[in-house]
Amino acid sequence: MIQADKILCGVDLGGTKLAVGLVDKKGNLIDKKVVFDHTSKSEDEVVKEIASLVNDLLVKNDLEEEDLVGVGVGFPGHIRYKEGITIISSNLKGFRNYPLKESIQQYFKVPVLIDNDANAQAFAEFKYGAGRGFKSEIFVTISSGVGAGIIIDGKIYHGVTGTAGEFGHMIVNPNGTIRCGCGNYGCLWTYVSGIALGKIFKEYLINGETTMLPVDDSTPSSKINGKLLKRGLEINDPLTRKVIGESAKYMGIGLYNLFQIFNPSVIIIGGGLINLGNYYLDSIKHHFYNLARDMLFDRIKIKKSQLMENAGIIGAASLLLESR
Amino acid sequence: MIQADKILCGVDLGGTKLAVGLVDKKGNLIDKKVVFDHTSKSEDEVVKEIASLVNDLLVKNDLEEEDLVGVGVGFPGHIRYKEGITIISSNLKGFRNYPLKESIQQYFKVPVLIDNDANAQAFAEFKYGAGRGFKSEIFVTISSGVGAGIIIDGKIYHGVTGTAGEFGHMIVNPNGTIRCGCGNYGCLWTYVSGIALGKIFKEYLINGETTMLPVDDSTPSSKINGKLLKRGLEINDPLTRKVIGESAKYMGIGLYNLFQIFNPSVIIIGGGLINLGNYYLDSIKHHFYNLARDMLFDRIKIKKSQLMENAGIIGAASLLLESR
Repeated sequence: MIQADKILCGVDLGGTKLAVGLVDKKGNLIDKKVVFDHTSKSEDEVVKEIASLVNDLLVKNDLEEEDLVGVGVGFPGHIRYKEGITIISSNLKGFRNYPLKESIQQYFKVPVLIDNDANAQAFAEFKYGAGRGFKSEIFVTISSGVGAGIIIDGKIYHGVTGTAGEFGHMIVNPNGTIRCGCGNYGCLWTYVSGIALGKIFKEYLINGETTMLPVDDSTPSSKINGKLLKRGLEINDPLTRKVIGESAKYMGIGLYNLFQIFNPSVIIIGGGLINLGNYYLDSIKHHFYNLARDMLFDRIKIKKSQLMENAGIIGAASLLLESR
Repeated sequence: MIQADKILCGVDLGGTKLAVGLVDKKGNLIDKKVVFDHTSKSEDEVVKEIASLVNDLLVKNDLEEEDLVGVGVGFPGHIRYKEGITIISSNLKGFRNYPLKESIQQYFKVPVLIDNDANAQAFAEFKYGAGRGFKSEIFVTISSGVGAGIIIDGKIYHGVTGTAGEFGHMIVNPNGTIRCGCGNYGCLWTYVSGIALGKIFKEYLINGETTMLPVDDSTPSSKINGKLLKRGLEINDPLTRKVIGESAKYMGIGLYNLFQIFNPSVIIIGGGLINLGNYYLDSIKHHFYNLARDMLFDRIKIKKSQLMENAGIIGAASLLLESR
């Protein structure tokens, strides 16, 4: 058991930012450090930077390493869970078959734990957020990509390798025409991920549709991001509503499929796109309930993530509280 | 713990037949009784018939009730698992919100356990069949309908109500034109279930396609069953190969979706349609591996069910060995 006064350390190793934080056992962020220079570094240098950021935070907060329960790390991609070896990341270059857990462990005496970032966030919601009080939980995250974390009887479900919950690669349209990063067509990813929404929006512009937003058919699709689409919804731009509405239809199908497979009490939706607001979330729910109807024998809660801003750090830290 | 000499009793309550059997703890069928007259009876009468069949078997085999570990029952539909109350069955009339467990328990002193039939078969494969030696397993059954049973860490995963694993109602085509019994369009069920295959085959006949099989566009689709389609494959009937090939494509998608969600070590396929033979199973595997490719980081086994003929009885009996 963890001593009452011990602190959790969480490392959110993202494709854009590397954030390290100290978190108390109630899930409150005590302090954090964020850098953006890690993306140009080698794996070993990134690990060294992580160790140095943790130490900086310890010094700054007048703590010793032994005040930590351990260091939890959320990785934005596939990992071999048991071994703590990364397989591949679509957000972070390098890190192919890299022994991330072992490499970080070299810098610490306290235990280091690694998991996929969606799993980590799922567990944090379960411990501290919208999943509190439930026995099991499905957590779905929609940002530039799409993923899920599955909590069953209080534990993260990993599958044999550690890649369970790849919800975004569920095929929901065998006649899909947009190719996913994975190489397949018709993945949920190609209809709902942030990257896909930009591409779909741009495709409509190329085909002659108009928008009230300050973009045109020469705008890179990466510029048509969640922030812009949120603006589009706010000003009632018809094209934005169309694109988001269609995406919500597919998310409704995705959640419905998870419902039929897992029969869960709660599905939590997190990730940046949830900030699109109620039009988006309500549309998702509308499509879900339209499909589930009389097959819902018990109530299901579809909730927004509660740990938005620092979900990555808190998620990584919360891994230290899972009983393995 | 179960005493070494005790025997399991399994009740396979199906839409066509009601089979009751005695099973030893190694999963061998000792004796069984099968009746077909239960479909015209009330729920209470069916329960009475079950009790009477169990007693007949005991007498015939010179056993007492106390020689049994208990009575396990597989139900062909939704149940409230914790309460042992049936919700609905698409194969068996009546049995809406019927207290099946309690009603059968009235006739016995040994414990009575109820579960969905696909869950029961999944557990029997795990204990005695193609799932032996694995920690977790996904079992899929394709017969007149489509279902799944999920075993995680040696236990059946039920979900909150008890309806988890409704794999057949996963939506795999948002533009699907065939309506499923559930009311939705585009369910996997509408592409792969035995009932759907007959309808799809007949639709082709109506649209002018020809077949070497002795059916035409006036044949009821229910007559175009697994047995006939198996014959069609044997004589290389082009329409049969087309229908089965398309169905295998959708099954490949279904299994791929389960793979992305569960990252399992083994997927077992059971149910009557697996008797269609290697053309069908190989096509399913072909489509699965075409989708999974380099996303398979560990080997996955896609295996045929090993407990075909008496899977229903043995499945129901095996429920008594699950640690709950």
